[in-house]
Amino acid sequence: MITLYDMPLSGNCHKIRLLLSLLALPYQARPVDLLGGEQRSSDYLQINPFGQVPVLDDDGLIIRDSQAILVYLAKRYGGEQWWPDDAYRLAQIAAWLSTAANEIANGPALLRVHHKFGRDIDIARAQQITAKVLDIVDRQLASRDWLVSDSVSLADLAIYPYLALAPEGGIDIGAYANIVAWFQRISALPGYVPMPGLWQA
Amino acid sequence: MITLYDMPLSGNCHKIRLLLSLLALPYQARPVDLLGGEQRSSDYLQINPFGQVPVLDDDGLIIRDSQAILVYLAKRYGGEQWWPDDAYRLAQIAAWLSTAANEIANGPALLRVHHKFGRDIDIARAQQITAKVLDIVDRQLASRDWLVSDSVSLADLAIYPYLALAPEGGIDIGAYANIVAWFQRISALPGYVPMPGLWQA
Repeated sequence: MITLYDMPLSGNCHKIRLLLSLLALPYQARPVDLLGGEQRSSDYLQINPFGQVPVLDDDGLIIRDSQAILVYLAKRYGGEQWWPDDAYRLAQIAAWLSTAANEIANGPALLRVHHKFGRDIDIARAQQITAKVLDIVDRQLASRDWLVSDSVSLADLAIYPYLALAPEGGIDIGAYANIVAWFQRISALPGYVPMPGLWQA
Repeated sequence: MITLYDMPLSGNCHKIRLLLSLLALPYQARPVDLLGGEQRSSDYLQINPFGQVPVLDDDGLIIRDSQAILVYLAKRYGGEQWWPDDAYRLAQIAAWLSTAANEIANGPALLRVHHKFGRDIDIARAQQITAKVLDIVDRQLASRDWLVSDSVSLADLAIYPYLALAPEGGIDIGAYANIVAWFQRISALPGYVPMPGLWQA
């Protein structure tokens, strides 16, 4: 049985919910009370010393970090479409997983935490990172439908939620036409699931 | 032929130099003049729109991002030791690659950029991230020699350079005994190469 330590408003959790649904994998959600501080409890820190969601428990195998959970599900359950055997293709996916872990987390995701939950952040730095990464992604998508392959890959899923949630961080994502068209391709995927706050046309 | 777009003082470049050497792969280094701003030139942005080093060119296949280059080299040249087939093992490695891309980059690596190169940063945030990740890594290494496997893995290489360079960011890394013992295991690996500024006993 797959259990997802989950928080409904987390974009990092949403990328996992999305892949689980695209792969038609049944799972149970185990909500973590982030606002109540459960992620700092000693029980939770045993599961994930970083005190973050999501965490995946697959029959006792515990995996922290949203990018790592994508890798696990793709490799174990996704087949060649989701976990290609080619080293260059894998590396291109890995590069976007790094972008998700760094620029997306420290740009649009951080601006959303500030605007939506009131966390004190360095707004100028987060805006600078956001402008840079949105420009790069938009140009990347000018000549192709998906970030890496001819079809959706982990790269797309890893950076999708916090770009589609960017309006909650005060970002005018509608100004990026190629990103908006890519949102529409993602939301048309069979098995797509939404979450509150995602950009809609 | 493998070409590494390189900067001698970059810890992200060093993790690639280290894996290339551990794998005994010949390569040529192509220095990038970061202090002179070459990474912002239009020629360089064609190679890596993020304007960062390292970049790997393997007979025309261009890979950006230090974690992605580790993945590429491990998958293409490293065999099962460096690129395990097991999904859970891969996911554990991927989790540390995310930590390298996020907490290590925004903690110890950023403090070093501030102290060594004078960049203006949010010092308190970088110190907070650093203290948290050093504590987690030190406890992880209390009961094991390597972060993920029974032998060195990409997880170790991905986070090693900026921890061993932490003294250049004003961090007393010597206070973390398990991390220091792990430094010594890494520097004893056949093919290990040093770089200026790395922690030494």
